[in-house]
Amino acid sequence: MTDPRLVQTLEQLGAEGLISADPGIVKMLTGHHYDIETGPSVFALPAIVIAPGDASAVLVCSADEADPSDTVVTYEGFTVGPIERVAGARRAMADAIERSGGSTARWAVDGASVPVGALPALGDQLVAGAALARLTAVKTAAETAAIEASIAVCDAGQAAARERSRDGVSELELWSEVRAAMEARAGARIPALIDLVSGVRSADAGGAPGTRTIGSGDLVLIDLVPRVAGLWGDCCSTFLAGEPTAEQRAAHVAACAALDLGLGMLAPGARSGDIDAALRAALAADGWADYPHHTGHGLGFAWHEEPRIVPDSATLLEPGMIVALEPGVYAEQWGLRVEQVSVITETGHRVLSGHSLALEQLAG
Amino acid sequence: MTDPRLVQTLEQLGAEGLISADPGIVKMLTGHHYDIETGPSVFALPAIVIAPGDASAVLVCSADEADPSDTVVTYEGFTVGPIERVAGARRAMADAIERSGGSTARWAVDGASVPVGALPALGDQLVAGAALARLTAVKTAAETAAIEASIAVCDAGQAAARERSRDGVSELELWSEVRAAMEARAGARIPALIDLVSGVRSADAGGAPGTRTIGSGDLVLIDLVPRVAGLWGDCCSTFLAGEPTAEQRAAHVAACAALDLGLGMLAPGARSGDIDAALRAALAADGWADYPHHTGHGLGFAWHEEPRIVPDSATLLEPGMIVALEPGVYAEQWGLRVEQVSVITETGHRVLSGHSLALEQLAG
Repeated sequence: MTDPRLVQTLEQLGAEGLISADPGIVKMLTGHHYDIETGPSVFALPAIVIAPGDASAVLVCSADEADPSDTVVTYEGFTVGPIERVAGARRAMADAIERSGGSTARWAVDGASVPVGALPALGDQLVAGAALARLTAVKTAAETAAIEASIAVCDAGQAAARERSRDGVSELELWSEVRAAMEARAGARIPALIDLVSGVRSADAGGAPGTRTIGSGDLVLIDLVPRVAGLWGDCCSTFLAGEPTAEQRAAHVAACAALDLGLGMLAPGARSGDIDAALRAALAADGWADYPHHTGHGLGFAWHEEPRIVPDSATLLEPGMIVALEPGVYAEQWGLRVEQVSVITETGHRVLSGHSLALEQLAG
Repeated sequence: MTDPRLVQTLEQLGAEGLISADPGIVKMLTGHHYDIETGPSVFALPAIVIAPGDASAVLVCSADEADPSDTVVTYEGFTVGPIERVAGARRAMADAIERSGGSTARWAVDGASVPVGALPALGDQLVAGAALARLTAVKTAAETAAIEASIAVCDAGQAAARERSRDGVSELELWSEVRAAMEARAGARIPALIDLVSGVRSADAGGAPGTRTIGSGDLVLIDLVPRVAGLWGDCCSTFLAGEPTAEQRAAHVAACAALDLGLGMLAPGARSGDIDAALRAALAADGWADYPHHTGHGLGFAWHEEPRIVPDSATLLEPGMIVALEPGVYAEQWGLRVEQVSVITETGHRVLSGHSLALEQLAG
């Protein structure tokens, strides 16, 4: 079984196969994912995929992670004996490459992820970087369903944030309660990239939750990006308890209008750079400052991938692409952002996000 | 400024300098650490240290992580433009290597961590694996103090676990409350490797918290391994609400006695394999089954490093080494483990752990 997305990427690269330890690429080509929350394992190298263009992909990982099979080659992981993860991985890699076209095939090696010590000598090797960006952009229906499940976890987190935010709670405490709600929904620990900033910190557009105490009238900007079963979701909203200022209310209306404008442009053939320009122009026409970040991005195998909705991007949207749009308005003393995730369909798009975008904490 | 630990490792390797992207080695040689909770960054490669034996180490990282200086070379990270992390890192690496002895020096490259695409052509390159294990084993006084701060976070988590464990709470809910207590103590989000298993799951010696509900009479085994400000702590205890069985009480007494035996052996010159053998023999003499894991390990720059207290290890303890000892007893339907972390002193050891090891949930 070969993946047409892989075949296309290999053609563009002029390679016969791909070797990657990128967690998203490994997930896409093998289905395998592993815990990432504590950095590299002491006992193993990252899981690596050996993917020829004309045969099944082979996974190389520690014996703790999977059973050996026709498509899995393992080496010793957790052990009370000597730790020989580099030598073990290199031997397993040589075996996997031998099964998959051999060392003389023209392999593209993912230069960002494959550790130097895991790579056996290859005859004709091409180090690939940015050229791999398109590989994971289009999702299958099953992948989209899994991303939708991850976004449902996002929704649970956003709902908890609105329910639990209260005068006197610290950002860190609120985050703990939001995380608990997401993990309860997922039924497991989950990694999560997040912004949770309140009051004047929201002017920075993002940041980790800290010891700041949330007070009445503080905007709370919360962007939740969990990985559930190996696939990432994403969602952002900004709310406050009490009465927003007229300027905050107007900024929120403008950000939501920009988001709606962007959603209306999501269809096959749309140019990513045009969507980016349209949202920035809409906010500028309303007199708001430009936001210091992307307008949006793909997600799923990573928390930010193609199609990137950024200035001048020539990427054309295709059915199966996942697109998060997240315009924001940031002033001197506060900031806000709204986000929704969609999948591109044959004729337009379908919104996957289900969380409230209301500015009022308990409305919507 | 060069680090005598680095000089010693380079002598053993026959190399003039070290290139590593191991988060612990980078932390030790540059002081730099970064978020690891969500896997590799889409915008950057892992931070890399270029460490010649005779001059200051140079850090190569994205511009989001540090400002350029004599000892920091950066490349573009987060961007709304094209993502060129591999090309950017490779250029920065070439610059850093040029400052640090040049590409013709004999470099040892950490094969487990340095991505293929970041490494410029080197004249005389040696891929190092297990040979790097001793580099981080001995800690300075400042590093030990930082590890002690991380262990104080462990203590807060253990105390919370005992306070909050209750009939009907799920493992995941308890974990959320424990994590909140640790993050409140640390004042920030922290990565954490953990075991949290209850009842029959404790027989497995470890595992991630799940949806299982904790009931009266269930043992709760909780092993917390947080990273605080880039350095890891570790702690384990096992407790239950209600009355333990006679066998559980006896097993706990035996495990604590084995731990005490091990603590008594911690001194400069002690052989790691002898400590491992002594604890296993003590439990066997009491009629308990051997535990299916190490007796202990070093920690700090990683969550498991030298000195590994494992069968046949010839590693001799030295002042400044950090040693976690964690004997356990695992039966068919339950298991328990106790752990304490010490630093080896000139004459013996000093216990850094402050958490309760009592079998009764709210005693001690």
